[in-house]
Amino acid sequence: MASNEVDGMTLAQSTTLTPLELHRRLSELHPEMTVLSVQDLQGRHPGEHSGNFGAGVMVQPATVEAAAALVGWCAENNIAIVPQGGLTGLVGGNVSVAGEVILSTSRLNRILSIEPEGMTATVEAGVTLEALQQAAAEHGLTTSIDLGSRGTATIGGMVSTNAGGILAFRNGVMRHQVLGLETVLPSGEIFSDLTRVVKVSAGPDLKQLFIGGEGAFGLVTKVVLKLEPQRPYRATAMLGAADARTALSVIRHLRTLPGVTLEAAEMMWPRYIRDHAHLKGLDLSWLEENASALLVEISAESVDAAAATLEDQLAELWEPLDLKGGIVAKSLDQARRFWDIREDSGFYYAEIPEAAAFDVSVPPTHLDAYVAQLESRLKAIDHAYAAYVYGHIADGNLHLTLIKRGPLPQDELRAVEDAVYTGIREAGGSFSAEHGVGLEKRYGYETFTSPAKRALARMLKQALDPKGLFNPGKVPF
Amino acid sequence: MASNEVDGMTLAQSTTLTPLELHRRLSELHPEMTVLSVQDLQGRHPGEHSGNFGAGVMVQPATVEAAAALVGWCAENNIAIVPQGGLTGLVGGNVSVAGEVILSTSRLNRILSIEPEGMTATVEAGVTLEALQQAAAEHGLTTSIDLGSRGTATIGGMVSTNAGGILAFRNGVMRHQVLGLETVLPSGEIFSDLTRVVKVSAGPDLKQLFIGGEGAFGLVTKVVLKLEPQRPYRATAMLGAADARTALSVIRHLRTLPGVTLEAAEMMWPRYIRDHAHLKGLDLSWLEENASALLVEISAESVDAAAATLEDQLAELWEPLDLKGGIVAKSLDQARRFWDIREDSGFYYAEIPEAAAFDVSVPPTHLDAYVAQLESRLKAIDHAYAAYVYGHIADGNLHLTLIKRGPLPQDELRAVEDAVYTGIREAGGSFSAEHGVGLEKRYGYETFTSPAKRALARMLKQALDPKGLFNPGKVPF
Repeated sequence: MASNEVDGMTLAQSTTLTPLELHRRLSELHPEMTVLSVQDLQGRHPGEHSGNFGAGVMVQPATVEAAAALVGWCAENNIAIVPQGGLTGLVGGNVSVAGEVILSTSRLNRILSIEPEGMTATVEAGVTLEALQQAAAEHGLTTSIDLGSRGTATIGGMVSTNAGGILAFRNGVMRHQVLGLETVLPSGEIFSDLTRVVKVSAGPDLKQLFIGGEGAFGLVTKVVLKLEPQRPYRATAMLGAADARTALSVIRHLRTLPGVTLEAAEMMWPRYIRDHAHLKGLDLSWLEENASALLVEISAESVDAAAATLEDQLAELWEPLDLKGGIVAKSLDQARRFWDIREDSGFYYAEIPEAAAFDVSVPPTHLDAYVAQLESRLKAIDHAYAAYVYGHIADGNLHLTLIKRGPLPQDELRAVEDAVYTGIREAGGSFSAEHGVGLEKRYGYETFTSPAKRALARMLKQALDPKGLFNPGKVPF
Repeated sequence: MASNEVDGMTLAQSTTLTPLELHRRLSELHPEMTVLSVQDLQGRHPGEHSGNFGAGVMVQPATVEAAAALVGWCAENNIAIVPQGGLTGLVGGNVSVAGEVILSTSRLNRILSIEPEGMTATVEAGVTLEALQQAAAEHGLTTSIDLGSRGTATIGGMVSTNAGGILAFRNGVMRHQVLGLETVLPSGEIFSDLTRVVKVSAGPDLKQLFIGGEGAFGLVTKVVLKLEPQRPYRATAMLGAADARTALSVIRHLRTLPGVTLEAAEMMWPRYIRDHAHLKGLDLSWLEENASALLVEISAESVDAAAATLEDQLAELWEPLDLKGGIVAKSLDQARRFWDIREDSGFYYAEIPEAAAFDVSVPPTHLDAYVAQLESRLKAIDHAYAAYVYGHIADGNLHLTLIKRGPLPQDELRAVEDAVYTGIREAGGSFSAEHGVGLEKRYGYETFTSPAKRALARMLKQALDPKGLFNPGKVPF
């Protein structure tokens, strides 16, 4: 057993077997299991973090029994396991190092059933969000959660990070969609709680531990998810708002309007929308200088009704809310272009590679004050500092990117993190909204989590995974 | 330290102090705390279980600090604690015995804030659901959960039992409304996670343990809850359905209708509706013999639009679904009378006092088969056996009452429990939907929970409450 380090964190467990020997032993464990070597992995994309394939060995069980056999063997041999799904995670939660074993859910990719009457789906962990959406659409249903990386993100990964996305303000996050769960515990035992009903008050709900558990408590293998009816009749608009408060008034108004469902509300602060438009040659003549852009989408009983409602409401709100411009999409194509401005949030990375990026939750009433304070705090570190600010405004989830080529020196990064995180917990927000802790938000976790909460987390980790075998080095328990 | 027994369960901890000495010591603990004696409790209603006040001493802290002082002192002195809220629980989850201390949240009854923009409320645990609904109504908001005992049930109690109610099919259960939580841990330490945002992916979400924890992991003291806009424009109908499948088709149709929100869908099987009508002298001439009654309520952009929609939809569905009657309420008063038939579900207790009653979740597609099997299983025990069946059909939550004066002899009760619970877990349901385990569903927990789940629950209980001080004797860990 050797010890490994990633960014200063000591990893609890790793094997001393040679790669060849490890490969041979793994290959013998279970017939329903594929083992990939360093060579096999070289041709594959490691996803959002270059260190994801560091372990150099990936096991792909095709059944929960195979996964359990692997985990049990690793437990016996004190070998650490890094679970991996679609590798779309943004905080290094899937990084692995030599001596560990990657446990990929890529062969656990079956949609087991869709129950139209109960509006639920039972899927294996490696199914992508988009694959499930397509299967559900055949029944007039869709997922009650949606996010930009839908084509690659897996349901299991979304459970493990408690994914959020664009519908959370209305439907809640992944935790609120999960009815049932099957996992493999660090002991190798299978924990099966594949409930397909929403009402369960039958003792402690243990599956909650694995939701947002970032792979620290075991491997998610199957998930029962709530679905909801599709609402295809939509209209989309962009409008100018002086501040978050104005945008929230628009949102509140649209949410209380009978006959209409608010489907999305995404805000882009001035610098984001201006720089994006400049880079992409977009026409922003409709938007007043210094205004933020709010993208709203509603559904109604027909496309015409949705569009007419949106036109009427913008006209009605224009003066009282002093809107700074507005434009209702005339076609699906134009609506898609509005969405591209929001979803292509990586537009700046060519200019500022490895920029420091954050993902915080702030109670909506605090948004304007938070953004103003953040700007002045950043300027106090370096007068040239500024940030791109955009996000899911209806639930207070802001994405922030420091407009500076990264990576920052450690002390500068800490100063920026302090500027971003300070006061958020006290205001009722969170230093990590939907991306998780992983490797990259460990300072946030260590510094901005209450000691009582950290102690409780440590206690649970110790109880479930006393050897520290599951995804070591990420959430610093 | 003595040992006590309730229904054969050994309670872990109790005090050997005399009642007078205990009262004196408790009274000195903290100024913000009231201590009630046996005499003080005699004039009070013990709620839904006659054994709730068995401990004979109740402490009412007025602040979380006072509660923490009490819990810390009890931990030092190995004295067991039974948390109590509104005492509306139906499974004996608040029963206490001599030697224990009742910890009541009745003085933790402040609504701390309502945030209209964020649509959240922060309340102390002892606030009743109705008090919160009234305060929220001033902002055009309401709770996203509702249940019949709203006037007495407390938010803290609803968190501890993961309450369900009539809106769960759409909004989820209490777990899905809770954004933040403050609790006192069995050690006496305060755990504060008063998040007011829906998106949090910042390490394990430990507050989930206390939701549905039935007071076994600590005392809930403060809660941050999601609210939602009021939808006051409603219409209510009763209609006849041959079976659950028909009712589910109606529900599915109303849920996918643009411009309309389904607010409730409650089904009463034939024997329930017939006996109720007979007892109360209600006119059921509109309902065909042998049909179940489905109560549906929708909201729309006006009262007239809601009523017209409901009339139109019933007309449209009449033939294809072969409806067995239907009546749309012509007034709020008539709608209220429809609701009384459903909510006055205790109508039969005068005839069959202490009847065995159950509360199960069944995936909606299995409802008809389940009810048919249940009837034949009951008849196999005793040919005279029959049950009242009614409940929140849209989420598969059935309430079942054996039509026989109770309590049943132990072996007969076990046979009935087996008849009610067998196969439910395998179908994806739960032996306890919204009432919890408490004392009365312990057989269900012991017999119809997977060994892996029970072992995990025991591990967590041991980690958090190693002395077994919190609500001993209820959920059998």
